[in-house]
Amino acid sequence: MYYVGIDLGGTNIKTGIVDEQGKIIAKSSIPTKSERTADEVAFDMAFEVLNIVKTNKISMDELVGVGIGSPGAINSGAGIVDYSPNLGWYNVPIAELILKRVKKPVKVSNDANVAALGETLFGAGKGYKDTILVTLGTGVGGGVVIGGKLFEGNESKGAELGHSVIVVNGQQCGCGRRGCFEAYSSATALIRETKEAMLRDRGSKMWDFVGGDIDKVDGKTAFETEKQGDATAKLVVNNYVLYLSEGLLNLCNIFRPEAIMLGGGVCAQGDNLLNRLKTRMQALHYGYQGTPAVDLLIASLGNDAGIIGAAALLMN
Amino acid sequence: MYYVGIDLGGTNIKTGIVDEQGKIIAKSSIPTKSERTADEVAFDMAFEVLNIVKTNKISMDELVGVGIGSPGAINSGAGIVDYSPNLGWYNVPIAELILKRVKKPVKVSNDANVAALGETLFGAGKGYKDTILVTLGTGVGGGVVIGGKLFEGNESKGAELGHSVIVVNGQQCGCGRRGCFEAYSSATALIRETKEAMLRDRGSKMWDFVGGDIDKVDGKTAFETEKQGDATAKLVVNNYVLYLSEGLLNLCNIFRPEAIMLGGGVCAQGDNLLNRLKTRMQALHYGYQGTPAVDLLIASLGNDAGIIGAAALLMN
Repeated sequence: MYYVGIDLGGTNIKTGIVDEQGKIIAKSSIPTKSERTADEVAFDMAFEVLNIVKTNKISMDELVGVGIGSPGAINSGAGIVDYSPNLGWYNVPIAELILKRVKKPVKVSNDANVAALGETLFGAGKGYKDTILVTLGTGVGGGVVIGGKLFEGNESKGAELGHSVIVVNGQQCGCGRRGCFEAYSSATALIRETKEAMLRDRGSKMWDFVGGDIDKVDGKTAFETEKQGDATAKLVVNNYVLYLSEGLLNLCNIFRPEAIMLGGGVCAQGDNLLNRLKTRMQALHYGYQGTPAVDLLIASLGNDAGIIGAAALLMN
Repeated sequence: MYYVGIDLGGTNIKTGIVDEQGKIIAKSSIPTKSERTADEVAFDMAFEVLNIVKTNKISMDELVGVGIGSPGAINSGAGIVDYSPNLGWYNVPIAELILKRVKKPVKVSNDANVAALGETLFGAGKGYKDTILVTLGTGVGGGVVIGGKLFEGNESKGAELGHSVIVVNGQQCGCGRRGCFEAYSSATALIRETKEAMLRDRGSKMWDFVGGDIDKVDGKTAFETEKQGDATAKLVVNNYVLYLSEGLLNLCNIFRPEAIMLGGGVCAQGDNLLNRLKTRMQALHYGYQGTPAVDLLIASLGNDAGIIGAAALLMN
């Protein structure tokens, strides 16, 4: 049997056929053109499903259903995109709009949740049943898997792991609160801190790294310059690791999952990031000596997590 | 059918017969004498079970089983008290020690988790399926109920809601980290802040409230003196509400339960506390206008939550 997973984004609609082992056997991508009506976008999505199935000579009898990972606030039980700024959607019954055209079961969930499910069933978290995925990108996203199934909270409005305050009255967060995990541990926050440190230290090697252009600072600037022995870069990285580890320790103590997986661009640092986090987390997680440790892993599916995770909604 | 619930504490063993509606129909209390061996304590517990059942003319056929709420780190799946400083127990297979004497199913869980289950099924949370209990006492304890069942994490070592940092590098917490929710929102923290404010303001009416004796400060001092118009007391209370609301908002966003219940002595303030928390939480919880609000309630079972919740482990 096969599954279709759709990674619905503000820019592109990526569609893939996924087999029972979580392997993508074919994929396609078309522009979302989100300025159109939701019904027009849904028409294209349904067309892509029917087309990719036909092109790959799979009969509709072999298709279990269609899973969708969507940005924004989703009510996965109802199959509705409640609100998605990226898509410009408000209260769109996307599952129904696809179902009436494809005539197969359709499930939808938030893109971060879907990625967590995909990584757990077929990626870095394979073999675990209780996991958390934390993505360090523009924001801090996350998904929680408990007993092999997505945990999403009331009307799927939980698991907003990035919007948990770790510094009361701290940095302003886009959500309206101050001091959220996201405001310290996103790539955006790392870039902000890198720039501020550079402005304080005009002699830092980070200036050379970006060719003197502070607008070229990204999530790698501090990490890479630290390797050249730059003290200011080291401060930035140490500080970033401190806040990130505190946010992750909170998730350890609250959920005590078997594993936490990290995704997003910052994870390109691999073991350099992971080992520093592990040192702090092993020392400070709650419990006595027999308390099970939480494994810390780098997510492994990359950009395919969206398609694979969406397909996995039908296996869940 | 009936259930026996045991609220096992460092000082007393409280045993009760609970009916299917969560009503205690008989209860007893004996001293724990925790300086004895675990087997001796377990013998007494088993005796209490058999005795209370017999005294109340309930046949063993009518008894579903025995539930135990224990302090410390419990492995509820295995029925073991891994570690309990209050009892002086390390790796005690309490379920097995009771089972071999009572010959009925025995379940054990952490006392805070058990209270959360009891409050959800038969107390303030009746009618809800996804709830969190946060107890504001010596520490900040908690329990999480998802879909009507306890969520406890790997080897029941999760749901340590009090040990989530809300101020990185903040107040020292007993767990080894700095800035935990517990270090700001426990009654202990409120008392610490009250005393510090009194030492800064020798003219505060709080001094009169405690008859000039700072050792008489408790969780009521600031709340009650604020009602007399004392500005310093008002500062203490506002600050306490600020940190408590941030910790609760984190739980809203992470779990998005239907309701959060507050327990512990501080809750004697009732609506005075609740309304201030609600105002902040409604303004700042994550989501757009359609995101479901989280109801905030005061726990209602009081000291019976332990017995009722322990019994409820067998209904779960």
